[in-house]
Amino acid sequence: MSRTLPGVLAAIAAVDPALFPIAKAHLDNLTKPRGSLGRLEEIAERLFAIRRGQPPAVDPARIYVCAGDHGVAGEGVSLFPQEVTRQMVANFLAGGAGINVLAETAGIDIRVVDAGCLGEPFADHPRFAGARVASGTANFVAGPAMSRDACVKALLLGVSLADQAAGEGILALGTGDMGIANTTPSTALFCAYLGLAPRDITGPGTGLDAHGVSRKAEIIEKALARHEAVVAAGDPVAILAALGGLEIACLAGLVLGAAANRLPIAVDGFISTAAYTAARAICPTVADYAFLSHASAEPGYAAIMSAMGQKPLLDLGLRLGEGTGSALALFLLRASANIYNNMATFAAAGVSSGDA
Amino acid sequence: MSRTLPGVLAAIAAVDPALFPIAKAHLDNLTKPRGSLGRLEEIAERLFAIRRGQPPAVDPARIYVCAGDHGVAGEGVSLFPQEVTRQMVANFLAGGAGINVLAETAGIDIRVVDAGCLGEPFADHPRFAGARVASGTANFVAGPAMSRDACVKALLLGVSLADQAAGEGILALGTGDMGIANTTPSTALFCAYLGLAPRDITGPGTGLDAHGVSRKAEIIEKALARHEAVVAAGDPVAILAALGGLEIACLAGLVLGAAANRLPIAVDGFISTAAYTAARAICPTVADYAFLSHASAEPGYAAIMSAMGQKPLLDLGLRLGEGTGSALALFLLRASANIYNNMATFAAAGVSSGDA
Repeated sequence: MSRTLPGVLAAIAAVDPALFPIAKAHLDNLTKPRGSLGRLEEIAERLFAIRRGQPPAVDPARIYVCAGDHGVAGEGVSLFPQEVTRQMVANFLAGGAGINVLAETAGIDIRVVDAGCLGEPFADHPRFAGARVASGTANFVAGPAMSRDACVKALLLGVSLADQAAGEGILALGTGDMGIANTTPSTALFCAYLGLAPRDITGPGTGLDAHGVSRKAEIIEKALARHEAVVAAGDPVAILAALGGLEIACLAGLVLGAAANRLPIAVDGFISTAAYTAARAICPTVADYAFLSHASAEPGYAAIMSAMGQKPLLDLGLRLGEGTGSALALFLLRASANIYNNMATFAAAGVSSGDA
Repeated sequence: MSRTLPGVLAAIAAVDPALFPIAKAHLDNLTKPRGSLGRLEEIAERLFAIRRGQPPAVDPARIYVCAGDHGVAGEGVSLFPQEVTRQMVANFLAGGAGINVLAETAGIDIRVVDAGCLGEPFADHPRFAGARVASGTANFVAGPAMSRDACVKALLLGVSLADQAAGEGILALGTGDMGIANTTPSTALFCAYLGLAPRDITGPGTGLDAHGVSRKAEIIEKALARHEAVVAAGDPVAILAALGGLEIACLAGLVLGAAANRLPIAVDGFISTAAYTAARAICPTVADYAFLSHASAEPGYAAIMSAMGQKPLLDLGLRLGEGTGSALALFLLRASANIYNNMATFAAAGVSSGDA
């Protein structure tokens, strides 16, 4: 099936708010004080609504780790050399990266996607799901990171991953990213979509010192000035093309595709949240399907959450990306689904409820 | 082996601080920016130190859910009738409670301990590990909750559980509690050990309204006034006997026993943290072995953490107890151990490190 972006957006429907009190009534009947499992209950209610009133379920779950290279890396905004994007893709395929370990710990499959790396195409591999849109982006200080056409292609690549997963019976998705320098476009996107200032949210990424952070903020300011008219015009796809990345657009497409397939999706850290912000700008209804995984240790993250009115599930000081936070969050989604499905009711367990 | 309390305390040794930089050097060599797995790296370092420089490991892990009844329940400080303690023990054994579901989700065994319930002894069961010290406590508004002798027996019961687990090859422990009305003694203990005021930290427990919370605070004030001399004298075991509970003393003993056996222990929410506070007052070195699982939704918890200078791993609005937070935290400990043991190094994966 070949999707168009308008076709995908037309397929995204809000969840039915009438399903939440039904889920809550069920949860209130389980052997625990009302609401005493906090956010796990909120998750269970939303999973119930996403599944149109079927019992919550998230397994099998799959994380797509989407990789891409960035022209702006040439500005020296990262501590790591650009070839590390490719090297880490190889590491994901070999099973040695943080996401491999955490996904395996959580019992979740991963797929590695070359959305836009530099260099030779990767050899095939059972975990590889690449369909490179282009070999890296252009430096967005000088011009748009990518054409609108490439951006739409990358969005539709992400949608196709969600379609494929849904077709294979996957019940929940997670996002993950790899791309040397990609906190720079992500920061630019947060500024453009949320009206934040680069100086307020630019952070060290993989480990820049204070001078490096200051230079990075300056480069983002330059890029925003360069694309001021695009940002002001407010077309979210044009903004993503100007300031984003191929893996970021692919992840935004994955979020759109998850919603179009009525699948819950765990959104990883800083980069994935930028992709989610793009998806939300394109179609606000995706919020019904997305679960923000964890608070990135990037210092700007708190201001971003405050601007978005969101609070992620976990706050463990992670700043690795790759989907590491998604893996942990999907475990919490599974725990929530199991609570909903497997706890005894007061009546069945012969436990007196708190109702007089 | 029959332990004495002084014997247990003599067996508790601090972890060697020289092991932390060795663990950190290993973590810094793995394919990720330094420190980018945040608290998971901190956990891995501490597990390495707890295990005297052996690779971190937590499996098999076991949660002890310790139950007891409270004389102060007669003051109407809980929304649930007192028989629910027994009913929930039966529910734990039947597998229908929140802790059953979350422990199973996390791949962790549980044992249910009758440390001091009311009524007939429970029938034997593979998950049951009871050795009741007494049938409930006395109302601590009128006199001490228990004798010093009963308190020491409950502490040593907890130690014996840790000894038994260590003997069976368990590598990590978790605490859990059940006891109608037990946020009341827990709040009294926080006040006594940490110098906090009942009005500042008393909360709704299973669901009291504002009037109920106010009455509960008043009862705790009365109890603290009644035992003012004991609190002022500062003997931590005497304070625990005056204001605690049998399951709380048992959990404090479990924490002491974990440290004596060099096992990491995940400390659950409000009640378990009160037990941990007692254990820490008895032997501050237990802090080396304890991992505070989650921020209880009880409104006083933030003030308690601030007084203790601690920040728990999770903040999911849980206020159920039973070890539900411990189960989720032990999953994070497992994830940390796996990161330490299973990630590739920069050299092995052929990934360029960020070092110039």
